[in-house]
Amino acid sequence: MTDVVIAGIGQTQVGEHWDISLRDLALRAIQAAQHDAGGLNPQALYVGNMFAPNLSNQAHLGALIADYAGLTGIEAATVEAAGASGGAALRQGYLAVASGMVDVALVVGIEKFTDKVGPEVEEAVSTTSDSDFEAVQGMTTTAQAALLMKRYMHEHNVPAHGLANFALTAHANGVANKNAMFRKAIKPETYSKAEMVSDPVNLFDVAPNADGAAALVLTRRELLPSNFPNQLVKIAGSAASSDTLALHDRKDMLYFDTAQTSAGWAMKQAGIILDQVSFFEYHDIFSIYAALSLEAVGFAIKGKGWKLAEDGSIGLKGRIPCATMGGMKARGFPGGASGVYQAAEAVTQLRGQAEANQIANAKYGLIQSLGGPASTAVSHVLMAL
Amino acid sequence: MTDVVIAGIGQTQVGEHWDISLRDLALRAIQAAQHDAGGLNPQALYVGNMFAPNLSNQAHLGALIADYAGLTGIEAATVEAAGASGGAALRQGYLAVASGMVDVALVVGIEKFTDKVGPEVEEAVSTTSDSDFEAVQGMTTTAQAALLMKRYMHEHNVPAHGLANFALTAHANGVANKNAMFRKAIKPETYSKAEMVSDPVNLFDVAPNADGAAALVLTRRELLPSNFPNQLVKIAGSAASSDTLALHDRKDMLYFDTAQTSAGWAMKQAGIILDQVSFFEYHDIFSIYAALSLEAVGFAIKGKGWKLAEDGSIGLKGRIPCATMGGMKARGFPGGASGVYQAAEAVTQLRGQAEANQIANAKYGLIQSLGGPASTAVSHVLMAL
Repeated sequence: MTDVVIAGIGQTQVGEHWDISLRDLALRAIQAAQHDAGGLNPQALYVGNMFAPNLSNQAHLGALIADYAGLTGIEAATVEAAGASGGAALRQGYLAVASGMVDVALVVGIEKFTDKVGPEVEEAVSTTSDSDFEAVQGMTTTAQAALLMKRYMHEHNVPAHGLANFALTAHANGVANKNAMFRKAIKPETYSKAEMVSDPVNLFDVAPNADGAAALVLTRRELLPSNFPNQLVKIAGSAASSDTLALHDRKDMLYFDTAQTSAGWAMKQAGIILDQVSFFEYHDIFSIYAALSLEAVGFAIKGKGWKLAEDGSIGLKGRIPCATMGGMKARGFPGGASGVYQAAEAVTQLRGQAEANQIANAKYGLIQSLGGPASTAVSHVLMAL
Repeated sequence: MTDVVIAGIGQTQVGEHWDISLRDLALRAIQAAQHDAGGLNPQALYVGNMFAPNLSNQAHLGALIADYAGLTGIEAATVEAAGASGGAALRQGYLAVASGMVDVALVVGIEKFTDKVGPEVEEAVSTTSDSDFEAVQGMTTTAQAALLMKRYMHEHNVPAHGLANFALTAHANGVANKNAMFRKAIKPETYSKAEMVSDPVNLFDVAPNADGAAALVLTRRELLPSNFPNQLVKIAGSAASSDTLALHDRKDMLYFDTAQTSAGWAMKQAGIILDQVSFFEYHDIFSIYAALSLEAVGFAIKGKGWKLAEDGSIGLKGRIPCATMGGMKARGFPGGASGVYQAAEAVTQLRGQAEANQIANAKYGLIQSLGGPASTAVSHVLMAL
């Protein structure tokens, strides 16, 4: 099969962009990606977004953003899979380019999360869980994560603050990422003194809702001129998997099936084994998600994912660096844009442009975008060419 | 390129399904399609939906419906492009199967439109138009269509009730479609006496919001056994295009650019010219959309689309039969499911199973799914093999 490559990336800073409209935010990321890709002309636009219909009263983002970006006329659609919307949009872009029907695809993740506050946001977020059987009972996604974390700590004898290093690592890595929402390292006592959001999930166990947009330009390698300036990154593996929305429908709620299967399929397609993965961008919207993802993908056995944070294995110089640009905790969680940020950050690593955060000899990056408690998982293996 | 075919179809009746949940409605269409396709196992699910996050408090439909349909684990995502969501989901399914990465894809269009009434529905519908520049001014999609219709009638000297036959034809065709919402033919005087919704759009110039689900099973022809029982229908052409959301941003608001380009591309891919199209399933959510679509695709010159309704050309035995199973007016408008219904109806025609509504010698069906006033258009040419 032909090589599908990421030829250009663009990101806005992640944060509270109350002075920039939804379409403007998307435009900035698109312009940066198109500039980076040397002006390739896309024929299709895939938008990853979760909440614009609820929080910005705006659906139909495909046509809206295509037009605003000066691309009126191209094919355009929104792809939604809750928190995995960004990964799912990348997956659709990949399939479109791989099919040969689209030569150049633009993938943009966009979220305006902070224009609204309070119940309205909670209500929007709750649409991603099972409305009839969870949300209607008042179960928020954070409460759901708290149940998972509490059970995990109980079953595996994890001490209080045992998951602290997921946050500490992420915030340490965020310092040098100019697009990160938070660029300040935190101390262990900052974590241990943090207020509870939903016991045992404290303020640093949950990623901040944020605004942001990131964009990627995808094409087939053979369509690029031989003197194309950017180091190319190949989408060597791409896969997605689904699970129940509701936790009570699962055999084992402490095992992220979809994280395992989608990562396994993506690595198989890429022809690599776990040891060859240079870094892992997990979906650390909650610390417990990070621990469970490490276990599902196979970096740790069941119940020991948290140890990889505690012993420094996930650090930039560790065995399997994670959240290398700050992850969702420090870079921030711009909803449906998150998966696209992961890809842009992985490309930065694979190009060797991550500066202070550079992973030595980065060759294969595994990125994973989750919707809900891995109800959806989309995994990609990106490879430096 | 390999042939992508529709191997199975399923539809629920269109109507007010207050006693059936969102997921149950989807399930029924999926089960019907899977039964029709002889039990092919899908690896991916593409959901076409517009309003579940707003009207059913439920996003993340991909994983939810995959699980409920007993397909837990498969790849799943929602595709949204306003009223064209169904067509866009079919397009993504087509690309996935054409890429070779997915062997069997399930496309399901689902909408629960009638559980809510009044301002809440109007607000949800308005998310499909330009929120910052149209919806915020109080412009509803029906008011927008009224502006188009009024201007059209003025510029082209269309008499009052000149567009009546779009509704009359659709309702006549709905009688024999057991899945149609309305199965009663209407008389000219029923149309002419109908109350105004937004002058000059009367009750019969706008399609009824409805609940419904339709599903398609897509695969590559070579993967099917030689004794596969159903007559196969090939997706011979597939294309999408986008335009501005806001009407005021267009050079000519009475020309549906995207309807022209996407249909042109799809026919080019199929290797056919307009004369070879056996029937045209247009997006007749408003009568004026039908007239403008006929003109844009090339069945009539500018300003004369309405004449094709008036002179009977769009009838079942006419030059270019349209809305052959009742269209959106009589079959009903189940939002993001509409484009999938179009495909299922076209397959019924191309298999020769349309009974009283059968188009003689149907070989090529052109179906077109629009989002807003053709802000998105997705066109497919389906071909009887």
